[in-house]
Amino acid sequence: MLLSELRALLKEVEQRRVSVEEALHRLKTLPYEDLGFAKLDHHRGLRKGFPEVVFCQGKTVEQVAAVVERLCAHSNNVLATRAGREVFEAVRAICADARYSELGRVITISRGEPLPRKGNVLVMSAGTADLPVAEEAAVTAEVMGNHVRRCYDVGVAGIHRLLDQRELMEWSDVIIVVAGMEGALASVVGGLADRPVVAVPTSVGYGASFNGLAALLSMLNSCASGVGVVNIDNGFGAAALADAVTRVKWEAAK
Amino acid sequence: MLLSELRALLKEVEQRRVSVEEALHRLKTLPYEDLGFAKLDHHRGLRKGFPEVVFCQGKTVEQVAAVVERLCAHSNNVLATRAGREVFEAVRAICADARYSELGRVITISRGEPLPRKGNVLVMSAGTADLPVAEEAAVTAEVMGNHVRRCYDVGVAGIHRLLDQRELMEWSDVIIVVAGMEGALASVVGGLADRPVVAVPTSVGYGASFNGLAALLSMLNSCASGVGVVNIDNGFGAAALADAVTRVKWEAAK
Amino acid sequence: MLLSELRALLKEVEQRRVSVEEALHRLKTLPYEDLGFAKLDHHRGLRKGFPEVVFCQGKTVEQVAAVVERLCAHSNNVLATRAGREVFEAVRAICADARYSELGRVITISRGEPLPRKGNVLVMSAGTADLPVAEEAAVTAEVMGNHVRRCYDVGVAGIHRLLDQRELMEWSDVIIVVAGMEGALASVVGGLADRPVVAVPTSVGYGASFNGLAALLSMLNSCASGVGVVNIDNGFGAAALADAVTRVKWEAAK
Amino acid sequence: MLLSELRALLKEVEQRRVSVEEALHRLKTLPYEDLGFAKLDHHRGLRKGFPEVVFCQGKTVEQVAAVVERLCAHSNNVLATRAGREVFEAVRAICADARYSELGRVITISRGEPLPRKGNVLVMSAGTADLPVAEEAAVTAEVMGNHVRRCYDVGVAGIHRLLDQRELMEWSDVIIVVAGMEGALASVVGGLADRPVVAVPTSVGYGASFNGLAALLSMLNSCASGVGVVNIDNGFGAAALADAVTRVKWEAAK
Amino acid sequence: MLLSELRALLKEVEQRRVSVEEALHRLKTLPYEDLGFAKLDHHRGLRKGFPEVVFCQGKTVEQVAAVVERLCAHSNNVLATRAGREVFEAVRAICADARYSELGRVITISRGEPLPRKGNVLVMSAGTADLPVAEEAAVTAEVMGNHVRRCYDVGVAGIHRLLDQRELMEWSDVIIVVAGMEGALASVVGGLADRPVVAVPTSVGYGASFNGLAALLSMLNSCASGVGVVNIDNGFGAAALADAVTRVKWEAAK
Amino acid sequence: MLLSELRALLKEVEQRRVSVEEALHRLKTLPYEDLGFAKLDHHRGLRKGFPEVVFCQGKTVEQVAAVVERLCAHSNNVLATRAGREVFEAVRAICADARYSELGRVITISRGEPLPRKGNVLVMSAGTADLPVAEEAAVTAEVMGNHVRRCYDVGVAGIHRLLDQRELMEWSDVIIVVAGMEGALASVVGGLADRPVVAVPTSVGYGASFNGLAALLSMLNSCASGVGVVNIDNGFGAAALADAVTRVKWEAAK
Amino acid sequence: MLLSELRALLKEVEQRRVSVEEALHRLKTLPYEDLGFAKLDHHRGLRKGFPEVVFCQGKTVEQVAAVVERLCAHSNNVLATRAGREVFEAVRAICADARYSELGRVITISRGEPLPRKGNVLVMSAGTADLPVAEEAAVTAEVMGNHVRRCYDVGVAGIHRLLDQRELMEWSDVIIVVAGMEGALASVVGGLADRPVVAVPTSVGYGASFNGLAALLSMLNSCASGVGVVNIDNGFGAAALADAVTRVKWEAAK
Amino acid sequence: MLLSELRALLKEVEQRRVSVEEALHRLKTLPYEDLGFAKLDHHRGLRKGFPEVVFCQGKTVEQVAAVVERLCAHSNNVLATRAGREVFEAVRAICADARYSELGRVITISRGEPLPRKGNVLVMSAGTADLPVAEEAAVTAEVMGNHVRRCYDVGVAGIHRLLDQRELMEWSDVIIVVAGMEGALASVVGGLADRPVVAVPTSVGYGASFNGLAALLSMLNSCASGVGVVNIDNGFGAAALADAVTRVKWEAAK
Repeated sequence: MLLSELRALLKEVEQRRVSVEEALHRLKTLPYEDLGFAKLDHHRGLRKGFPEVVFCQGKTVEQVAAVVERLCAHSNNVLATRAGREVFEAVRAICADARYSELGRVITISRGEPLPRKGNVLVMSAGTADLPVAEEAAVTAEVMGNHVRRCYDVGVAGIHRLLDQRELMEWSDVIIVVAGMEGALASVVGGLADRPVVAVPTSVGYGASFNGLAALLSMLNSCASGVGVVNIDNGFGAAALADAVTRVKWEAAK
Repeated sequence: MLLSELRALLKEVEQRRVSVEEALHRLKTLPYEDLGFAKLDHHRGLRKGFPEVVFCQGKTVEQVAAVVERLCAHSNNVLATRAGREVFEAVRAICADARYSELGRVITISRGEPLPRKGNVLVMSAGTADLPVAEEAAVTAEVMGNHVRRCYDVGVAGIHRLLDQRELMEWSDVIIVVAGMEGALASVVGGLADRPVVAVPTSVGYGASFNGLAALLSMLNSCASGVGVVNIDNGFGAAALADAVTRVKWEAAK
Repeated sequence: MLLSELRALLKEVEQRRVSVEEALHRLKTLPYEDLGFAKLDHHRGLRKGFPEVVFCQGKTVEQVAAVVERLCAHSNNVLATRAGREVFEAVRAICADARYSELGRVITISRGEPLPRKGNVLVMSAGTADLPVAEEAAVTAEVMGNHVRRCYDVGVAGIHRLLDQRELMEWSDVIIVVAGMEGALASVVGGLADRPVVAVPTSVGYGASFNGLAALLSMLNSCASGVGVVNIDNGFGAAALADAVTRVKWEAAK
Repeated sequence: MLLSELRALLKEVEQRRVSVEEALHRLKTLPYEDLGFAKLDHHRGLRKGFPEVVFCQGKTVEQVAAVVERLCAHSNNVLATRAGREVFEAVRAICADARYSELGRVITISRGEPLPRKGNVLVMSAGTADLPVAEEAAVTAEVMGNHVRRCYDVGVAGIHRLLDQRELMEWSDVIIVVAGMEGALASVVGGLADRPVVAVPTSVGYGASFNGLAALLSMLNSCASGVGVVNIDNGFGAAALADAVTRVKWEAAK
Repeated sequence: MLLSELRALLKEVEQRRVSVEEALHRLKTLPYEDLGFAKLDHHRGLRKGFPEVVFCQGKTVEQVAAVVERLCAHSNNVLATRAGREVFEAVRAICADARYSELGRVITISRGEPLPRKGNVLVMSAGTADLPVAEEAAVTAEVMGNHVRRCYDVGVAGIHRLLDQRELMEWSDVIIVVAGMEGALASVVGGLADRPVVAVPTSVGYGASFNGLAALLSMLNSCASGVGVVNIDNGFGAAALADAVTRVKWEAAK
Repeated sequence: MLLSELRALLKEVEQRRVSVEEALHRLKTLPYEDLGFAKLDHHRGLRKGFPEVVFCQGKTVEQVAAVVERLCAHSNNVLATRAGREVFEAVRAICADARYSELGRVITISRGEPLPRKGNVLVMSAGTADLPVAEEAAVTAEVMGNHVRRCYDVGVAGIHRLLDQRELMEWSDVIIVVAGMEGALASVVGGLADRPVVAVPTSVGYGASFNGLAALLSMLNSCASGVGVVNIDNGFGAAALADAVTRVKWEAAK
Repeated sequence: MLLSELRALLKEVEQRRVSVEEALHRLKTLPYEDLGFAKLDHHRGLRKGFPEVVFCQGKTVEQVAAVVERLCAHSNNVLATRAGREVFEAVRAICADARYSELGRVITISRGEPLPRKGNVLVMSAGTADLPVAEEAAVTAEVMGNHVRRCYDVGVAGIHRLLDQRELMEWSDVIIVVAGMEGALASVVGGLADRPVVAVPTSVGYGASFNGLAALLSMLNSCASGVGVVNIDNGFGAAALADAVTRVKWEAAK
Repeated sequence: MLLSELRALLKEVEQRRVSVEEALHRLKTLPYEDLGFAKLDHHRGLRKGFPEVVFCQGKTVEQVAAVVERLCAHSNNVLATRAGREVFEAVRAICADARYSELGRVITISRGEPLPRKGNVLVMSAGTADLPVAEEAAVTAEVMGNHVRRCYDVGVAGIHRLLDQRELMEWSDVIIVVAGMEGALASVVGGLADRPVVAVPTSVGYGASFNGLAALLSMLNSCASGVGVVNIDNGFGAAALADAVTRVKWEAAK
């Protein structure tokens, strides 16, 4: 609740247009809904620009379905990540228009007017095995209202494949780089591009990759500037950060 | 070198306005300067929007002075980070107009027209001991061409101090959060603000902070979205990422 | 054996009311029972205020059943944690009145007079996926003799959900905070409440959560005071510590 | 601000005894003081039962002195930890009645009525090298208003030294166990006592102690129940948790 | 593209034997093929001396089959590593002449003239459980064009078994040492032989081997010189490095 | 081969009682047998006092069977550890007199004269879940020729159970302590007993036990002296070290 | 206190030759001495075979001097490890006959009859930089009553230097192996000798030795049997374990 | 000692041209020299192609001087690494012709005929701060008999600087890549060149570089093939491996 809203409310109390108990209620309660096992943050759309997203991992199918059902009642856009096919089936039983990205394990529901496209997000990946994470990022960025292009399998072992992508990089407002193993792609892209680079280490690799630790440390130590890192395999988080960047652009251009 | 430039050059060769050897030279060499111990990347200003920055740690005072001198010859803006006072003295002997932020250990030289202000950067820190890193970020963001505001010592142990800063958050285009110990500030700010949040873990703490590892992991696992993480104590990197974001806004608004 | 008991026993020997061999026996043996694969510590109820608890993980179903059977013979209250359903079935075959918390994986047997309620324990969790650990804590605290209230899914990404819980916090004597990912909830609660906070990191998360390490380090480095940490996923341990706190209160109030 | 206080304030606005702007001011500002580099949380005494404590490490001598001076103006009790002698000299120049524990590196200022003694805190340490941490805990617990007894050098290599301390353990309401190396003392004390045990791993040791990691992990994995762990070398944090426990007792006994 | 090739091309443009658009095309495109999910680097054979190798782990069976099919169209030699039997079946359905090393999990296709034998590679392993990695190395080195000999189960616990292998070591141009557990074999072989030693730590072991970390660190800290280390379980990488060494020899001998 | 044997052999060559080729053979070959995938060290019995032991993990059932068969041909005593039941079935098909410890996963074959009992080995374990490792140690120590006694479930949470075992400790020549979680048992036993203590950390535990790391570090940092540590879960290794100790005693007593 | 002693005491109480209070005193107090900052365990000589040893690191010079003075009053043999020269000067001021090993940083005081030689201890080290730790072990083993031989700089990079030491190995009852870097020496010695091997990893090395971690893990994973590991740089602990082994031999031979 | 040499020696014994004792001596002793604190391996030149190298770190100045003096007596080429200036002064006092690389901390003595140049070694470094390690490698490779070229400060943040170096790469037989921070240079060079690449991670960086761990893991996980890794900061080891490679070439070309 912003200062201006608080002032307005107090004025209404002063003028007896709003009762003390009503004001109390408004000040005390913030708009969330309690399902017992979860407290849905219906206010998040106002605060963060996109409704609460369902992270399915660690929740039962029933819990996900109940949460999605309630979110659908309050919002035109619902996103659920890390969703297996059985979760999707349960969601589709409730919302027949739910769509599913098998590769990215993402469920999306979009109703009403499509969201305006705020900006251009380029998703690059180093190898084929990084695709599930890259797709989670790409689908999320799209559903949040962005133009998305994909540029996959451009790892630094064949750097000419990457140098070829200059035009794509220039098209973008923000670049998401998805890479496992040694994660060097983030540094090379960061050195070439003047856009914000969101680096996503993946758990792709074996042995001394230590489930993505090598790529994570590599990206955190990038000798190129303009690189921000998210958690290992966190395609959603990368897209959310990219979306926050394009929102800055979009608001400036309005 | 962009495709359009290459086409133009080839046309000139075809029309014999440019000799083969000259074209060869242009295609072969890119603009960097070799000091033997360092290869200065004078092209970086074009590519990344700001000239190469001198990271002083691990370089001798003489090396820094030589590099700064050459950069000054090519650019109006020079930035040197992790600079001790003795480094600054050596730089000032060459460039009398160099300025020094003792707290942030940053040397800046700004000549000619001031850079346009691209956007608003808010730097928040959790505790007083985080100030050197916060100041490195703040000074860097300023010299790169941003309005900067500082909001220090708003750690989550007294969360009312933070909740009070809503207006500052709304003023900003991007927020840099600097925190050591458990680094929880990034999550709380990320939950409140819809701007991109650049999280900088610091090595402030002791014991199981493991020199910033605790804050780093905490920030990477943030339950709030829109948070990108840079290396421990990397105030410069946070500012460079924030600057890349405001550049996106600025170009959109042009 | 306390000093006063030793003095009394020695007096009885001096007065020949107790034979040397009998005294020897009492001094030598302490009340535990040897099942071969386990030595049941029947003395623990006297020493620690609650009988030995069965940690089922790593024990065969038969071993658990045998241990529970012997404990039932000595105690009105039996608690078994980390118990799968098949373990519960085996226990119920022996003790028909055994109850089971599927979510918390806890078996409880309570006979005779209910234990007096020593105090008020509030169990808070950051997310829905933390519920199994939170329930292990809640059920344990209840069976040990405490009033327990649950307040789930109040993670810091939507901090208004948490700030709403002030009354619950004031009701409590001790607060158990269960959180995975970055575990920031413990710091924020620790900053708001003057009660002892028992922080339980969970293995909820992925990537750089490193199976709960991120939350663990975060909680250990809490910038708020009054926070004690237990092992990752150790809901039982948190409840036992909370119970030790309410016992201090209860003894003071007697 | 509690619900009851909010209701009262709103009633006063309704009855025009308090102006809108005044109510706005009260609702907007919480009592902290901004020194620029620090925001003093003068409200903490109300919220947590003891004023904000100064953690000196990472602050300049001047910063500590300025903070202590402001805290003295608002509170009768000031505590500064991790304070070197030169910090103490600077503080004493301002507050002539400041006292210093050289071993525990703690500065204390206590004016006015002594705080009531809320309960009994026993501080045990495993070895002589653990004394600085143990003293930080003991002095902190005393200044916060507790009876404190010390029992040092009772490590498990000579377990009879420990078994001898039963009476001390029974005297206590809460036991702080300070131990480095393998930290086994926490488990053994936890097995003997029914009080809450606050375990403080120390960085005492070498090699595979990894600066206290071994003791930390050992304490987190304690096979005894009722043990809460704080950060490595965090004597202050242990005392603050112990103090939160005795406050529960003290309020119950009132 | 080498400098000499660039000069020749520019000359042809100058002499109008090659059109601007044609030159543009040649300069712009490098020979890779885009399958959407993968960009095949057909240029790698020229650049690295052996065509792109398919790392099957993390790819679907369909993806591997599609990639192998395209590689076969451009190259006489195809190698696919970390291939399960079901992958091999899919490949054989396309290329009937594909062969499979079950132990080494390697698929090979060799058509046309056999590659010349560039040198002698000795593969040694410490224990029987290291064989899958050793075989991956041996088969890879063979298919890349080397004489390969195997010498397995010569761990240092029975050092006479190793000392017996002096003649084999002298036969070799490069030695691949495959060892898990403490990985000491690399140091002992490195002390005996004057050939380059390629050390491959394996994940063989348990407990404090930490999935190969112990062997990896051991090999990196080898007190013997002339030892280069590759990733844990990376038999392929060891063979590729060994092959790079024999290529140096072979080119010198030409 | 000892110096005295070498002198004797050379003398025989000098005296032409042994041909050069024969001497060469003897000097060159040491008694091991090459199965291709394994080199059996039949000399180990002479060198180490017990024949080569088969570590089954990571070997195929066929490999184990082949190795056991060859070892049986050269030795009266065969030991195979980490053997699943299916491995035992395969071994029993070859050696009908093979015996199996299901709990300790150990196969033993003992023919001919029983080995003399060299000394007394006490195996203590902290908890019931440590039994598989403890049994691996106990069975190994027995088959190598020792009197073995077991004393299980004497963890430090109920230290009276341990203090009761003084007589058993005095009976022993060497004590094997098997403990997971925080592994404090090794320190307490090490403080009580003057025998060599072989500490075996186990992977029993969860969370911050990090698969036995906590117990391992704890044991390595034991404040008690006379404690040697083996790998996590290495019951066999503990028994082999204990056996080396009793062999020292036995040779002294001869 | 042994069972037989307890029986005798109780009999004396029964016969009124010992008063209840006297018996109480004897049962209650065990012979340690409280210096406030330390509790000297004068009973340790009886229990462990050698008096309490002073670990100087982390103690002030005054604390060490006070402890040594009291130990000298109760024992003929005093040992202080990790002692700098200034500590030695302070000790010599009290005990003029104190001796000092500068390399091993060990102070020894031996009065009265020399201790009998219990057995033969061989100390081997891999490199010259390992000497301080090796000397700590050697001096400790000597003062505890053992014949000691040193065999330094026999690392596995020149394995012939080690193979030459067979006779020394056969002379020994127990071998202490001191090695840093990759620590392979322990495995090779363990494979050659049938004596118990006490492995001491040292912090000698750099980079990926991680202050001795590489050698520690290497030794814990030794493929040779009969190897027990102590903490990094713990020369004293290795000698104490070796001494416990020779005591077993010596008691058997009596 | 090779098989052929052994046969020859035995024949001489058979023919009584060599006495038994003489043969015994030759078989027993291998050529090393015992300085007490060090055993110099004078045989290493024969075995490894270059005499034993002195690693100065952890040795006293006196020890280094003594070792260098003895090595000079047996060899024309002496190399000492990690040598501070005071070590060099001590060496120069003995060997007036010793030379010193201050940057690389390497002492070299070369007498008699210069060693033949075996091949071409290119040393590349990512940044200016990597120079000490790069120089250690370059000087070592030179003194071992190689043509060496240096190419410094070609990190991937300005990849055009690197792509410019194609000719240098083609000149080389083996490339040493020295890089700290994220170490991506090794992957990019490995993707461009068909030579063996020896990757040296450096401890250059801060925060999450964890003293070189990030670069180390990055290099071990390189997606390019033909890359072997040595220890962090191990310039010497890289050169020794490179030299082993050029020796293979040189012997082939002979």
